[in-house]
Amino acid sequence: MKTKEVMVLKDLLGSNNKIAGEIRDKLTARGILTINLLSSPGAGKTTLLEALSDEVRPRYRMAVIEGDIETERDADRIRAKGIPAWQIQTGGACHLDARMIGRLFPEIPPDLDFLFIENVGNLVCPAGFDLGENLRLVLLSTPEGDDKPKKYPKAFTTSNGLVISKTDLVPPLPFDIDRARREALDINPRLKVFTTSSQTKAGLPELAAYLIEELKRLRGDHA
Amino acid sequence: MKTKEVMVLKDLLGSNNKIAGEIRDKLTARGILTINLLSSPGAGKTTLLEALSDEVRPRYRMAVIEGDIETERDADRIRAKGIPAWQIQTGGACHLDARMIGRLFPEIPPDLDFLFIENVGNLVCPAGFDLGENLRLVLLSTPEGDDKPKKYPKAFTTSNGLVISKTDLVPPLPFDIDRARREALDINPRLKVFTTSSQTKAGLPELAAYLIEELKRLRGDHA
Repeated sequence: MKTKEVMVLKDLLGSNNKIAGEIRDKLTARGILTINLLSSPGAGKTTLLEALSDEVRPRYRMAVIEGDIETERDADRIRAKGIPAWQIQTGGACHLDARMIGRLFPEIPPDLDFLFIENVGNLVCPAGFDLGENLRLVLLSTPEGDDKPKKYPKAFTTSNGLVISKTDLVPPLPFDIDRARREALDINPRLKVFTTSSQTKAGLPELAAYLIEELKRLRGDHA
Repeated sequence: MKTKEVMVLKDLLGSNNKIAGEIRDKLTARGILTINLLSSPGAGKTTLLEALSDEVRPRYRMAVIEGDIETERDADRIRAKGIPAWQIQTGGACHLDARMIGRLFPEIPPDLDFLFIENVGNLVCPAGFDLGENLRLVLLSTPEGDDKPKKYPKAFTTSNGLVISKTDLVPPLPFDIDRARREALDINPRLKVFTTSSQTKAGLPELAAYLIEELKRLRGDHA
């Protein structure tokens, strides 16, 4: 890359990180835990949020920001569950950025517990952009194959949790859950790993318990 | 986006398209049909190439350029089939570009029939970059869901063919093949659609016949 290109990229990232920091400060001060969900297209992010909502509500209040290149489909699915949702259409951009979240800020209710941000389906680009989240979760669905962490490392090295999704498809799918876990932990030993199925609900109580624990910790830290 | 950023982006794309045009001219003059494969991670690009090689060889000679963020895994799989393969590791970049292909150019044997380029697993960014291919194929695997064409339109509007992969998983997976086909044709009516399974080999003879037909057309046009 030429020097001019590198400088423009640095400007972009620097300004993104500044806005992300401000968003994180404001949401954290309100006691809201913000979670950025990353994965390939079709790994089950929206379905996970639908299933997870049954675990955390009505005790906790949640809302969802949906990121997609085009269409309002994912936000419509979330709203059908009675959950507030906003759709960001990036119109071509391969990831959300902090500015897009910042624009929505005035609409976010102040009395939330969890704010989920479902990023554009893309295992590469979203990893480079802080959105002001407290936690980052990467989903890896079993049909994608157990060899993905080392092929797409940044999504795994920058995340706090790995959600292996669609485990109900194994077998017949030849996905080695232990191999995927080992490979992910190999590049990021601090990763919390959850093996889940949104169909059978396996692993969802554990994931919900982790998020509730993190919410309490955030509020304890900022009490 | 600011004017400076837009200009840098235009410079990048302009220089990419120029190099891509030169690559296409040279490969076409040699009678080589070049095919750029796009999809999400784990949609089955490498497995399709392995299975397709059984259909086209030994009558036709093929080679494969593999694009990945990290690892040499895909090229190793292709070489294990006795097929020449080169691995490009982008080291973070979310797509291949024409310059990366150009650097490999001296190593490409002049007497090939098919040169396949397997792009980085990403349904967004690779769609914006011409690599000098004659044909672009986008794979959509059934576990990803039948709602993807309109959510990630550019990969579908810029492709010549759509390969619906992993159809052996339907049912139990709730993927409506007709819906996916209709939605893709709705945004790109000229798309050739192939419904395939690399496990059962369904649809592979039709896909191979299409590529052979395109090879003949390319050689006829440039005889």
